[in-house]
Order: sequence, then structure tokens, then C-alpha cells
Amino acid sequence: MSETQRWTQSRLHDLDRQECRELLESHRVGRVAFVTPGGPVVLPVNYVVTEDAIVFRTTPHGEIARQIDGRRAAFEVDETDDFTESGWSVLVQGVATFVESARDLPDESRPTAWADGIRSLFVRIRLETVTGRRLLPG
Amino acid sequence: MSETQRWTQSRLHDLDRQECRELLESHRVGRVAFVTPGGPVVLPVNYVVTEDAIVFRTTPHGEIARQIDGRRAAFEVDETDDFTESGWSVLVQGVATFVESARDLPDESRPTAWADGIRSLFVRIRLETVTGRRLLPG
Repeated sequence: MSETQRWTQSRLHDLDRQECRELLESHRVGRVAFVTPGGPVVLPVNYVVTEDAIVFRTTPHGEIARQIDGRRAAFEVDETDDFTESGWSVLVQGVATFVESARDLPDESRPTAWADGIRSLFVRIRLETVTGRRLLPG
Repeated sequence: MSETQRWTQSRLHDLDRQECRELLESHRVGRVAFVTPGGPVVLPVNYVVTEDAIVFRTTPHGEIARQIDGRRAAFEVDETDDFTESGWSVLVQGVATFVESARDLPDESRPTAWADGIRSLFVRIRLETVTGRRLLPG
């Protein structure tokens, strides 16, 4: 179906910070993006939202651990409907840091690692900039 | 549920390039990641797969258009199941370039823009590195 054949196109609206937060809290899996010498990388992780950050776990021996600490990162959550060609997405941008000790996190802020292996490293991405968009069916 | 309370954790496997390609072709929406002066950004886009690239449309006046041409970018597609804590993800890494003319694209390689507004710019991300992982239920 070409663009000219469509009756209507979906309309894009910005979401406010409260809506973005509610959508972030409604999901369990998002995607972390970070910059490597070979360009940006995006990987899905399960996460929790604390008052001021996204928290997820990773292995201390992986690419996230090697690249992310102290640097700006992004985190994205979305939901789309292929049929109505609509959906929403939320983007968090902020500095990522390792959590020194898991004991610094309240119990409800310690995500369980889905994948096996030693995922002992907790990473926080600060909720510095939080933006979102909703694509309403046309 | 803390990690120690779980009976088993899901197991992570690498996917080969053919599997990655089939998964890329099975979906319509993925996420493009690119680097801005303020750090990485991730945005969902609908796309098509050509022989050697991901192709999507965007507005010539947006952040993607300002940042991506001629630079390394990433593109990610995934599917996860919260209940079984399993899923898969595919990551494309490669140089992004503007398509000079939509006529350079075969008909089936011209994605329809879901969102309204003028999305006249076609962007290609070359399938240079294509990697994927599957997280099998534990």
C-alpha cells in the first residue's frame, strides 16, 4: 500500500513527563543504547524504575559494562500495533553509572535478571530527559 | 521474586545471520539508534529490509535527518514474553545514508510512513554487522 493509497495517516502527539513515567512503569523490558568505538549499540534488558532512574542488571564481562559507566546513554520503551499503525514510545536520556552496592538499592528496585550467567552488575540511567510520543490511529 | 527464588533462569543463545534476517523480515517496526551531541537516541520506525539494508522514512526536518547521514547507526528488532521471561533480539550495525531518490528503491523497498507529516526522506542502514540472541525459557 503506497502512501497516496492510504485514507489517513496516524497522528503524532508528544507525551508529558507524567504520562511517560506511567508508561515506563507499566513495562518490564526496554532497550538500552550506548556508544561504542564501532558506533551505537541497542540491547533489550529487563528493568525497574526508581524515583530518578532506570535500573537494570548486566554481566560485568560484557559490552555494556565496558562502555557505559559515567557516559550518556539512552533507554527506550515502546508498544506498537501493526494493524492500526499506532503506538507510543518513551525515551530516557541520561548519564549511566554502576551501582556500587546492590544494598544501595531498595528491594523493589533490584531487578531480577532474566538471562542466566552472572549478572551481578547493576546499572542506573538517570531520568534526566524523559520524552515520549503517541501515534494515534488516523 | 528475587533471583534466588527462581527455579531456573532463561538461557541465552546466539542466532546465526540467516535466522537474524528471517526475524528482521518478519517484523515491521524496529528502533533506530544514532548518536547526537547529547548522547545516543533511540526512536521506533517502521521499515523494510532490502538485500543489503534496512530502509525507513523520516522527516527532513527532524533529529534523525540532522544526525544520521554518513555515520554509523544501529537498528534493533525484538520480541519478548514477560510471562516466560524469554524472547529474541536482532541488532544491525552499519553506516546510515540518505537515499538520493526514492526511484532508486524497488517498489517493495519503499516503506509507507505510519505517521503524518512530510516524511519524504528515505534512510538506509547497511547490514554490515547483523547479530542476534534468543533467550529460551529456563
